[in-house]
Order: sequence, then C-alpha cells, then structure tokens
Amino acid sequence: MKVAVIMGSKSDYPKLEEGIKILKKFEINVETRVLSAHRTPKELMDFVNDIEDNVDVIIAAAGKAAHLPGVIASNTLIPVIGLPIKSSTLDGLDSLLSIVQMPKGIPVATVAIDSSLNAALLAIQIMSLRYKDLKIKLDNYRKEMSKKVLEDDESISNL
Amino acid sequence: MKVAVIMGSKSDYPKLEEGIKILKKFEINVETRVLSAHRTPKELMDFVNDIEDNVDVIIAAAGKAAHLPGVIASNTLIPVIGLPIKSSTLDGLDSLLSIVQMPKGIPVATVAIDSSLNAALLAIQIMSLRYKDLKIKLDNYRKEMSKKVLEDDESISNL
Amino acid sequence: MKVAVIMGSKSDYPKLEEGIKILKKFEINVETRVLSAHRTPKELMDFVNDIEDNVDVIIAAAGKAAHLPGVIASNTLIPVIGLPIKSSTLDGLDSLLSIVQMPKGIPVATVAIDSSLNAALLAIQIMSLRYKDLKIKLDNYRKEMSKKVLEDDESISNL
Amino acid sequence: MKVAVIMGSKSDYPKLEEGIKILKKFEINVETRVLSAHRTPKELMDFVNDIEDNVDVIIAAAGKAAHLPGVIASNTLIPVIGLPIKSSTLDGLDSLLSIVQMPKGIPVATVAIDSSLNAALLAIQIMSLRYKDLKIKLDNYRKEMSKKVLEDDESISNL
Amino acid sequence: MKVAVIMGSKSDYPKLEEGIKILKKFEINVETRVLSAHRTPKELMDFVNDIEDNVDVIIAAAGKAAHLPGVIASNTLIPVIGLPIKSSTLDGLDSLLSIVQMPKGIPVATVAIDSSLNAALLAIQIMSLRYKDLKIKLDNYRKEMSKKVLEDDESISNL
Amino acid sequence: MKVAVIMGSKSDYPKLEEGIKILKKFEINVETRVLSAHRTPKELMDFVNDIEDNVDVIIAAAGKAAHLPGVIASNTLIPVIGLPIKSSTLDGLDSLLSIVQMPKGIPVATVAIDSSLNAALLAIQIMSLRYKDLKIKLDNYRKEMSKKVLEDDESISNL
Amino acid sequence: MKVAVIMGSKSDYPKLEEGIKILKKFEINVETRVLSAHRTPKELMDFVNDIEDNVDVIIAAAGKAAHLPGVIASNTLIPVIGLPIKSSTLDGLDSLLSIVQMPKGIPVATVAIDSSLNAALLAIQIMSLRYKDLKIKLDNYRKEMSKKVLEDDESISNL
Amino acid sequence: MKVAVIMGSKSDYPKLEEGIKILKKFEINVETRVLSAHRTPKELMDFVNDIEDNVDVIIAAAGKAAHLPGVIASNTLIPVIGLPIKSSTLDGLDSLLSIVQMPKGIPVATVAIDSSLNAALLAIQIMSLRYKDLKIKLDNYRKEMSKKVLEDDESISNL
Repeated sequence: MKVAVIMGSKSDYPKLEEGIKILKKFEINVETRVLSAHRTPKELMDFVNDIEDNVDVIIAAAGKAAHLPGVIASNTLIPVIGLPIKSSTLDGLDSLLSIVQMPKGIPVATVAIDSSLNAALLAIQIMSLRYKDLKIKLDNYRKEMSKKVLEDDESISNL
Repeated sequence: MKVAVIMGSKSDYPKLEEGIKILKKFEINVETRVLSAHRTPKELMDFVNDIEDNVDVIIAAAGKAAHLPGVIASNTLIPVIGLPIKSSTLDGLDSLLSIVQMPKGIPVATVAIDSSLNAALLAIQIMSLRYKDLKIKLDNYRKEMSKKVLEDDESISNL
Repeated sequence: MKVAVIMGSKSDYPKLEEGIKILKKFEINVETRVLSAHRTPKELMDFVNDIEDNVDVIIAAAGKAAHLPGVIASNTLIPVIGLPIKSSTLDGLDSLLSIVQMPKGIPVATVAIDSSLNAALLAIQIMSLRYKDLKIKLDNYRKEMSKKVLEDDESISNL
Repeated sequence: MKVAVIMGSKSDYPKLEEGIKILKKFEINVETRVLSAHRTPKELMDFVNDIEDNVDVIIAAAGKAAHLPGVIASNTLIPVIGLPIKSSTLDGLDSLLSIVQMPKGIPVATVAIDSSLNAALLAIQIMSLRYKDLKIKLDNYRKEMSKKVLEDDESISNL
Repeated sequence: MKVAVIMGSKSDYPKLEEGIKILKKFEINVETRVLSAHRTPKELMDFVNDIEDNVDVIIAAAGKAAHLPGVIASNTLIPVIGLPIKSSTLDGLDSLLSIVQMPKGIPVATVAIDSSLNAALLAIQIMSLRYKDLKIKLDNYRKEMSKKVLEDDESISNL
Repeated sequence: MKVAVIMGSKSDYPKLEEGIKILKKFEINVETRVLSAHRTPKELMDFVNDIEDNVDVIIAAAGKAAHLPGVIASNTLIPVIGLPIKSSTLDGLDSLLSIVQMPKGIPVATVAIDSSLNAALLAIQIMSLRYKDLKIKLDNYRKEMSKKVLEDDESISNL
Repeated sequence: MKVAVIMGSKSDYPKLEEGIKILKKFEINVETRVLSAHRTPKELMDFVNDIEDNVDVIIAAAGKAAHLPGVIASNTLIPVIGLPIKSSTLDGLDSLLSIVQMPKGIPVATVAIDSSLNAALLAIQIMSLRYKDLKIKLDNYRKEMSKKVLEDDESISNL
Repeated sequence: MKVAVIMGSKSDYPKLEEGIKILKKFEINVETRVLSAHRTPKELMDFVNDIEDNVDVIIAAAGKAAHLPGVIASNTLIPVIGLPIKSSTLDGLDSLLSIVQMPKGIPVATVAIDSSLNAALLAIQIMSLRYKDLKIKLDNYRKEMSKKVLEDDESISNL
C-alpha cells in the first residue's frame, strides 16, 4: 500500500502535513515529493514513469494555475487526486478551476481547497477496493470522528 | 465490477449517457438510479445501505445545491465521484462548489462540470486497483483517444 | 416557543452567539446542537425525527459545502433557516450557494453570510405568525434598533 | 390564509406562475401585485402599510439590484421571502446578493434564483405554524413529489 | 453648494472621511448623516423629502445588500452617487452589484468600492456644471495630483 | 444642453439607442460618436480636448477591458458616465469592473451593465443642476414610469 | 518568420481562424497543430523539442483546465502566448485563470478569451523585435484599423 | 537591451522589485517610472512617444481598473506586458480582467496577478528573439530554478 504525495512547491508542505499524518496513521507507505510541472517537467515525467507499478494512488497539490495533478494524470493510469492550494490572490478559485475542469478523457479526482485530510481519506477509500482491511480502519476512523462531534454536541448543548 | 450511477433528477440523464456508455464499453455493470437527496432521502439511504458489498464505485450527479454526492459519501465507505451539473443559473459554479468543498472527513472525488465521461473514466481508474485487466483496457482507450487527436492534427495541419 | 439551533461544527459556535442571545432575549427556548450532516448523519436524522412536534423553527449553520440546512429541510416540515458560514477559502460564496440554491420542492430560508442575528430575527418573525406577542417585542426591538441609528446619526452629524 | 406575491416588474410574472399555482393548489389566498421599490416607492409603502393585519407571508421577486424584498421587510414585521430573478447579465448573481446579504436587523428569507416554487413552499411551511392542516397537505405534497422521483427512478433504472 | 453624505451605518464613517475632507477643501457644505434604508426607513424618507431644494448632490455609502443609494434615488431627482463599502465577506462584490445594477428608470452613479475620494470628486464635477469656479479648483486639484505622481516618478526613477 | 455619447465600437450602437432616444425626448442635443480608446487614441484625445466648453455630460460605453470612460475622464473635467457593455464572455463582469474600479482621483459614474436608459437619465439628472426645467420633465417622466407600473399592477392583480 | 499555432482540440479551430488569417496576411509562416497536453503528452513534447530553432513564437489555445500553454512554456524558451477558449460552462473564467495564473518562473503571455486576433497581433509585435519590417506592416495595420473606426464614427455620427 | 517598467502608483513598487532585480541580473537596462494613465495622461503619452526606438519591451503594472498597460499598448508597437496588481478589494480580479480582456486589435501580454518575476522573465524571453545570448542565460536560470526545486524535493522526501 503506497501513496505518492507530490507538491508543486516546498511552501505547500505545511498544508499537506495533516493528510500525510492520516495516511501514516492508516499504516500506508507515503512517498512525499516536491516536483513542479513547470520548473522540473523532465524530473516529474521520470518520477511518474517509474511509479506505475508500485504506487496505488497519487495525491498532487498545487496552487494558482495548478497544472501538476492534470499533467501527472495524463502520464499515468494510477488514480490522481488533485488538491487545490489557496495562494495569495483569488482565494483558491484559480487552483480549483485549474484542477477540476479537466478536459474529456483525463479525470482528476478533486477535493476541497487546502483539504489534505480529505485528499488522504479519499486515497484510503480508493485503496480499500484492493486492501479490504482499510475498510475496517476507515469505519473506525469515521466512528471516532462521529464520537468527536457528539462530544462537541454535548459540550455545546449544555452551555 | 459494478458502478452505481445516481442522479438527483431524471432531467440529468442526457448528460450522463456518455459516461454510462463508456462504463458499458469497459464491460462494467452499471446500476442507473434516480434518487434525490432532498425529495427521496429515505429511499436514498435504503439504497446506499444496500450496496455496500456489491458496488465498487458510486457516481453521483446533481445540479444547483448539489448535496447528493456528499450525502451518499457520508453514509458509505465506497468511493463517491461527484459530477456537478450545470443548471439554468450561475453556469455550474453552484453545483461545483456544493460538491467539491466537502468538510473535513468526508471527501467526494469531484470532476469537471457536466463531464460524465470523466466521472466514468475516474471510476474505471479506481476500479483498476482491484481489477487489473481494466488497466489494459484503459491503456487501449487512451491510445485510441491519442490516435484520434493525431488524426485531427493531421487534418488540421494539412489545411 | 422553541428554536433549534444546529451547527455543523463546534467551531461555528462563536458566530452563532449573537443570534442565540437575541432568541433568549425574546424569551424563546433555544436548543443548541452540534450535528454534522456528513460526520453524524444518523444522529442528525434521529434528532430531526424527534423534534417535529416540539420545535417551531430550525436554524442550521454550516460552512463550505454546507449541506446541513438542506439535509434537515428534506426530513422535516418545520421551516429551516440556513445560515452560511464563511470559512478559510472562497469568502463565504461556497456555503451561500450550497444553502440557497436548493432544488425544486425543498426550500431553505437563507440569510446573509455569518449573520446569526438575522437568522434569529427571521425565526422570531416566522414564529410571530403563531405567537402574536412576539410581534410587539419585535416592534420594540426595531424601535430600539432605529433609535440606535438615530443616536449614531446625531453623533456623526455633529462632528 | 393569505400570501402577497409582489414582483418588481410585470416581466417577472412568467417565472412566478409556478409558485402562484402551488399556493392556490394549497387553497391559500394569493394577492399578486406589481410594485417597484424604485419606480413606485410610495405605492409600495402604502401597500405594505395596509397589509400588516391580513397577510401571513410576503413573497417578493426582483432582478438585478433587487431591493424590493429588503425594502418591504424594512417596513413590516410579516416574514418576507426574497426570490432572486435572473436577468440578462451576471446570471442571477446580482439579484441573489442584493437580496440575501441584508444588513443586521432586517432579514429576508432568500430562496434559489428563479425558484418561485420554493418561495411558495417556504411560505406554506411558515404558515403551517399557524394553520396546522397545511402540514398534512405539505406532507402529501412531499409524498407525491417523492413518488414522482421514484417513478422516474423506475423508468431510468429499466433503460 | 451642498452635498449630503449619507451612510447606512456609523461603522462606515472612517471610510468616508477622505471624501468629506476633500469636499470641505473645495469649500462645499457637507451634511453628514447616518440613516439606514432598512433600520430607519421613515427617517430616511423624511430626510430625502426635505432636501430636494437645498442639496446639489447626494453621496450614499453602504455595504452588503447596499440598498441605501437606490432607495434614496427612487425618492429624489437629485443625482445620487453610490459608494459600495466592503464588509467582512465577499470582498465588496455584494455591495457593488447591489448599488450599480439598478433597474431601468432610476440610475445611481456608482464609484469604486471604498473610494470615498472618488465619490467626492464626482460630486464636485457634477456641481461644476452649476458652479463654474469649481472647475478651476478641480483643475488645480488635478494638477497637484499630477505633480505628486511626477515627484513619485522622480524618486522611483532615480533609485 | 448637450450630451456626447461615445461608444468604443459601432457594434455597441443597438444597446445605446434606448438611451439616445430618451435624451432626444428630453430635447437635449446629442452628439453620437464611435471613438476607441485603443484603436483611435489620438482622435479620441482631439475630440475630448474640443468639447470642454460645449458639452455638459459625456456618456461612454464600452465592453471587455472597457478603458474608454476612464481614459476620457482623465482628460476632461466634464462628468463622465460609464456604461459597461456585455460582450461574448464573462457576462459583463469584465467591463463593469474595468469601468467602476477607477483609481483615486479620476471617478467615472458607472451605471448598470447594458443600461443606456439609466446612463441617459443620470445625464439628465446631472444636467438638471444647471437647467432647472429638466427637473420638471424628469418629474413627469417618473410619473409616467410609475403610471406604467401601476397599469401593469392592475393587469396582473386582476388575473 | 514562423509561428506555431497549437490547439488542444480540433473543435477550437473555428475560433483560431481569425488569428491564423492575420498571421498569413503579414506573410508569416504558420504551422497549425492539434496537440493535447492531456491526451497526447508525448507527441506534444516531441513537437516542442523539435521547434526550438525554427519557430519564433508559439500560440497555444485551450479551454477548461487549459494546461496546454503552460506545459509548452515549461519545455521551451520560445515565448508562448496563451489563448483562453470559452467552453460550455463557466464563461471562459476557468481557462483564463488556468492560463494566466502561472507560477513563478514560467510565464505565459495571456490574451483575452477567444481573441485569436490579439494572440496573432501580439506574436507579430514580439517578432518585430527581430524582423523590423513587421513594424511597418503593423503600423499600417493599425492605421487601417483606425480608419475603419473613423468610418464607423462617420456613419454613426450622421445618423 | 532595455526594458521600461512603468507602474501606475509608487505604492506598487515593492511588488515590482523582484522583477526589476531579475532584469538587472540578466544585465538588461531598466528604466523604472511612475506614470499614471489617469492622473498623468499627457506625461505618459510623452514618455511612450519618446521610447519607440530605444526600448525593447514595456512592463506596465497597475491595480483596480488597470488601464495603464492597455493605454500604453494603444500608443506604441513595442510589446507591452501587463502586470495586474491586487489591491484592497476584489482580490486582483478587477485588475486582471481590466488588463487581459483587451478589445480586438491591441493585445496586452498579461501575466499572473502580482507576479513581477514572470513579467520580467517574459520580457527576457521576448528579447531573446533579438539578443540570442539571453537564451543561454535563460537556460541557465531555468536550470538553477530546477535545481532549487530538486533540493527542496530532497529535503522534503527525506523528512
């Protein structure tokens, strides 16, 4: 079980930590890389060509004209999850549209802006098709999440 | 191999046909349903509870305040692909944001507005983790797609 | 006279306080709950099924893909007021569209982004159809509000 | 039981017909008026002052800088439902924001752009606080709506 | 020569100071008022009815669903300049559209978001049709403004 | 009494006709010109320099990156009314922002997208500062407009 | 003198014809190609690697998540002009942002949505740095353009 | 080799520094100017008329209704790069649209909001058509940029 987490810029790393942490909590191997579709196109292609057989899902995070997820998706059959990163202008709308509006034939599975947790959970759900024990872990994770909301509910409803 | 294709309204069907066709071309079982998160919430829950063991991926299409994919995703561990449908106002932006901006914990794999083909191809890529022969078919599909572009290239470059 | 105030996340609470305060000032019973359409769907349904006979109006607040108000409205005949919460991206537009653009048949009474005061006042106006003395209190409230503006007017016009 | 349906321009009427029809189907008296916040401000005020005691809910529909619902709401304690109408530019976003983003103190219950059906149903839900038999009719209406979806489901799932 | 500067809320005052200052610099009488279209509709109408003969131009500033300029314009023939104020959500787009998209028949002269200086200068330009000496002052103001840019140009080009 | 109506392209003319008609109805001299800020910058400057003493108000209409009103306003002290024209993309938002968001010092009085009628009426209101009889005509115009709404009201309320 | 005009899809061709025509009118060699960043990534790279020495400027047109211009720009030092194409949803905003918001280091010279004429003229202006006689032709072209506006001006001002 | 960097306001200078620095690193002469299309139209025209023969590329930066690049482009055949500057409202969307949506005939080569580095690099790429040694420097620059990403990649992948 392995997920590649690729970011277009090292500065995106803090927004990815929550997702990487959850992947590791699910005992999934994570390969974390900084590779830019625009500044290191050749190294990116080399990486994508190498991983076809040993990575289950790719998470690609990028801001602004966020081509990284789409460029990766065009060069592999591995499912690619696109994570739009909000940058200093346009409030994340640019990266969202650049990732989700892929043309016919090459989909990118897009999640909410800056939500690396959801990117990671989607990767786990996808991998659970093959690794059935992930379903049990996911089910437990959801129960904990639900429990947390119910605790919040109790603390708020008693105010 | 089975995909459930759920739409919030019968009127979305014409936009889903291209995706359903490609799923069938890949010899995947397709269960096509009209179930509304808002108008048939109970029937939707019944359906979602029933499919946990016999569906690999769910495609959920909806317009406007498109809650269908998120509501389904909250009630199953099966990966849910959200397909935003453009309706008569706001040019698809409402359904896109209602589907992609899911809160922490429950991701929806969102594809381009009105692009049922990409929803279907993403479902196939996800299922290929488990059913390896889909990879070969996908590879062939991409080659055909590429061939088609190259034929267009030839016809245009000779103008 | 009872209003249920439901929020999708405990972190929304500070934005709800102004509205809760005004409801209490009008001597309306308030039941404040944290229940997520996505993380606690079953508990939310249980809650909604239970309240049909003892709550007059529901205020539901949520951010991002804010399905909470719509999901509640689909499962009750009680009027539901949707309060869009601004989160860290897209400036509130995502939650506004996810709440207001409800499909045919299931309306949500949407108020301004982050405006729990208006959600509360709308609840009071709706309840005043049944509890006529609320009209008098509302009338007084408006007079105070108007008086406050006129005091501001005096202080500014004398600068 | 009476609802006032006010539109800013006669040209909005075709979009209001569906809502007026449903109100009449629920045996609610409907007073339909064309009154402009901008072109007939005095007549509008006269009308609003007159109806305080004989109308339960007001539906106000307007396009572009849609001030009509807010202006009415400022001059009455009757709940006002705002219906944004899409005009020839900006795809309905202008009227939506002009109606929903009301300042502190004067809420307008906003529904989806061009959705007079939802405006009418919200009016009925609000009136059902006072007229309990509307709840039964609403319940039946929802069952019919649900039945219609299930028929669509059957026709589509058998394709 | 008199300009009425009306704001919907006292909190808008700091954004208006630059404009008021420039009006006073041009030796124009300024009447500054806080009057809300929604919270003090009657007082606003009284004010508007009173000023017809002794004010040349009205500047009306408001945020969110900014109806103030349009409501004033509907009740007077005096030219109304609308100044959209940015509030805590939607980055000023809501007030801009609520002010500028006025329906047929009642125009509001809209200036840039938060730009009270431009509102004031537009008022002065309009008044210069009647008070010709304002033209000379305006011409001098522009020359100073131009001189300031040229000084900046010199300081920057010598860096 | 003279208004210059300038459009950036001959194709904008049909959208300007309604405004020109109303100006003529008010017996105002209209000089209608096609002059592009981008394609005929010199001719535009010549025109602007010539009119300082014989035009009261300028209406400038343009689409897309609509610089025409701002460029004119920078070169004259005559009040400039900017009329955003909707073109084939972006639904008029581009021209609206290009016209209304003028930087400090040079205001453009912006009206609703494609609304030449409002541009014309604003011009008349501005000119009425100088030509008092326009006030009477304007007052009559508003009365007719109001009468028209009331007739519509009668026809609709009797349906 | 050679310009490569690359489009992501054959269906973009009609929107490119005006630009290609103007390039040919300026006696510039045009190589027109259909090459998709997503469907033919390898062929695109082969093409880009081949042209480094025999093409002066590249025009790349694409719709939706329009990665084509950016992907080309990342693999060549030749200036790349990006032409956003409006597709069936979002009115061209998606392709505009996907093209113009390039990250640090790899610029794309973006022109207006659907404006192949401007893409072509920009290519010519860029080439005129090297081929000085293009300046003369450009100057003539502008004079003709200006003449056309002045003819329109004459026909309109005489109406 | 000379680039003119023109900004509409001295306050834009900090955002331009990165671009100016890179131009100087490439040993290109830089003329930095503050000239406003609106506040110093005549001085701007004088400057543009003077530089036709001694500047290769113009970079023009402006915020809000950013007419500066378009106004310059209308008065010269030198390629103009437009740099949209984000101001206090609308998150840069206003300046982006005001710069990129130029009408037919006068293109502006637009780069990402606030990205003076990309404006500078685009200027260098354009000049490299004429000054071939810039290609070698650009190639080295890209290699360094790529090296920096690969170093980041190493530091992140080893975490």
